[in-house]
Amino acid sequence: MILERDKTNTAKKEIEFLFSTEFLVRDYECDMQGVVNNANYQHYLEHARHEFLISRGISFSELHEDGLDLIVTRAEIDYRYPLRSRDRFEIKVGICREGNVRIVFVQDIYRIPDGKLIVNARITGAATRNGRPVFPGNDLLSKLGLV
Amino acid sequence: MILERDKTNTAKKEIEFLFSTEFLVRDYECDMQGVVNNANYQHYLEHARHEFLISRGISFSELHEDGLDLIVTRAEIDYRYPLRSRDRFEIKVGICREGNVRIVFVQDIYRIPDGKLIVNARITGAATRNGRPVFPGNDLLSKLGLV
Amino acid sequence: MILERDKTNTAKKEIEFLFSTEFLVRDYECDMQGVVNNANYQHYLEHARHEFLISRGISFSELHEDGLDLIVTRAEIDYRYPLRSRDRFEIKVGICREGNVRIVFVQDIYRIPDGKLIVNARITGAATRNGRPVFPGNDLLSKLGLV
Amino acid sequence: MILERDKTNTAKKEIEFLFSTEFLVRDYECDMQGVVNNANYQHYLEHARHEFLISRGISFSELHEDGLDLIVTRAEIDYRYPLRSRDRFEIKVGICREGNVRIVFVQDIYRIPDGKLIVNARITGAATRNGRPVFPGNDLLSKLGLV
Repeated sequence: MILERDKTNTAKKEIEFLFSTEFLVRDYECDMQGVVNNANYQHYLEHARHEFLISRGISFSELHEDGLDLIVTRAEIDYRYPLRSRDRFEIKVGICREGNVRIVFVQDIYRIPDGKLIVNARITGAATRNGRPVFPGNDLLSKLGLV
Repeated sequence: MILERDKTNTAKKEIEFLFSTEFLVRDYECDMQGVVNNANYQHYLEHARHEFLISRGISFSELHEDGLDLIVTRAEIDYRYPLRSRDRFEIKVGICREGNVRIVFVQDIYRIPDGKLIVNARITGAATRNGRPVFPGNDLLSKLGLV
Repeated sequence: MILERDKTNTAKKEIEFLFSTEFLVRDYECDMQGVVNNANYQHYLEHARHEFLISRGISFSELHEDGLDLIVTRAEIDYRYPLRSRDRFEIKVGICREGNVRIVFVQDIYRIPDGKLIVNARITGAATRNGRPVFPGNDLLSKLGLV
Repeated sequence: MILERDKTNTAKKEIEFLFSTEFLVRDYECDMQGVVNNANYQHYLEHARHEFLISRGISFSELHEDGLDLIVTRAEIDYRYPLRSRDRFEIKVGICREGNVRIVFVQDIYRIPDGKLIVNARITGAATRNGRPVFPGNDLLSKLGLV
């Protein structure tokens, strides 16, 4: 599972997907055009990232008690094809580092079962302590397979 | 501004509306049928209640620091007529007590400018301390004009 | 699976649950209090009803092409206990008729795996043709097991 | 009102804001962290774009009847600072063309009254006919001040 970002997305290097999770479009997620509203893809992507972190033994609440928060600093989302009511789809998640404090989540959405590409996303996160970006720490990076 | 609940709603006594606030339907709040999704009316009603409480000098965060939380225990919503994209509407809010611990918010939604009745709602709330329903306190009731 | 509505809910007769579907609370569905926002339960309930109708071979789009729409006319929701981030839960669905044009969905939410009761809901729907309530038709009622 | 995109955003040329609209954060838009959930900014941005288009005399439904649909093909959102419950904010909107078929909406969110920068967004749209990207037409471009 190797990804090549296309021209409109910036990441050019190959990134392996480490995680995948399935969804079903619910009717209330669709708008007047009969397709999933653009903002709802960000909800899907957030849920997939959180599932991925949990699968790696990373707990937001434990990090928070330790004074470390993970926040999203930038979202880039390319809408390739719309999802409709009751479509099944999966979100694949890969990660890489960007500089010292940023972690980039590469997330693609594919319709099931035909594998139609729906969305390419690149979500940049940062670890913060007291609201300031900090090095996420070797323990966190190790759990993410980034060291 | 006097309300008579109709047969399907339980409150029979007359309640005066104490507060009103205006909204505009946003496109993302509409679903595939081209009308506001049913759940979104509860979002509107919640926002109107919070605006009402703030207009009365009631702060959730101050109450919470004082150990008191206000929660919704029951919602009754009658959908009379649908709102559509870009409709303007107002929510009128009245209150009454029910027993020792419950406060009932009577909330009606009217389209602007024609006054078409859209929703009758009756939202029951309770004050809780450590998760248990308690008497809301005379200070709170006084701010709400209920003593 | 027999239901007895409690005092605050009106349906007193016993209704058998015909359908059940599972969910997982997603973080974006929780609000500042750290619990699922009240309006989101209506989203869950809607999705469970639509899944139930589909399991019975009832298609909204086919009904709509035939000029028949199913709408919600009233929602009664009793909030018993809050769901939190990552809670698993199931929604059980039963139905009964009310008069000639109305169908009532009795829907209860239970946390998994401990079976804690979260929500009792009673959602009244009606079939409409050109915006007017009509008899839903024997074909629809038969699919729902109501004739 | 001149915009200079910073390093993380691609548009470098100066763009004039043509439109501005105000919002108030509603409690249900905030998540467990007590700040507006990331996806909700896309809802705000969509509403501001639609208000802008309407202010220019552009009607989605009339365009649709004419066979032309406006869709979002890419969203880039930089989260600078979080909004909290009851914050007031404004969204400023500017536009430019990109190639023959794409229109770029430059949208910034500022907190009111202190003018704190909250979000920089760059939303790329395209006109489509039968699902295929097309030249939007001189009438539309003229209404947008792009010819």
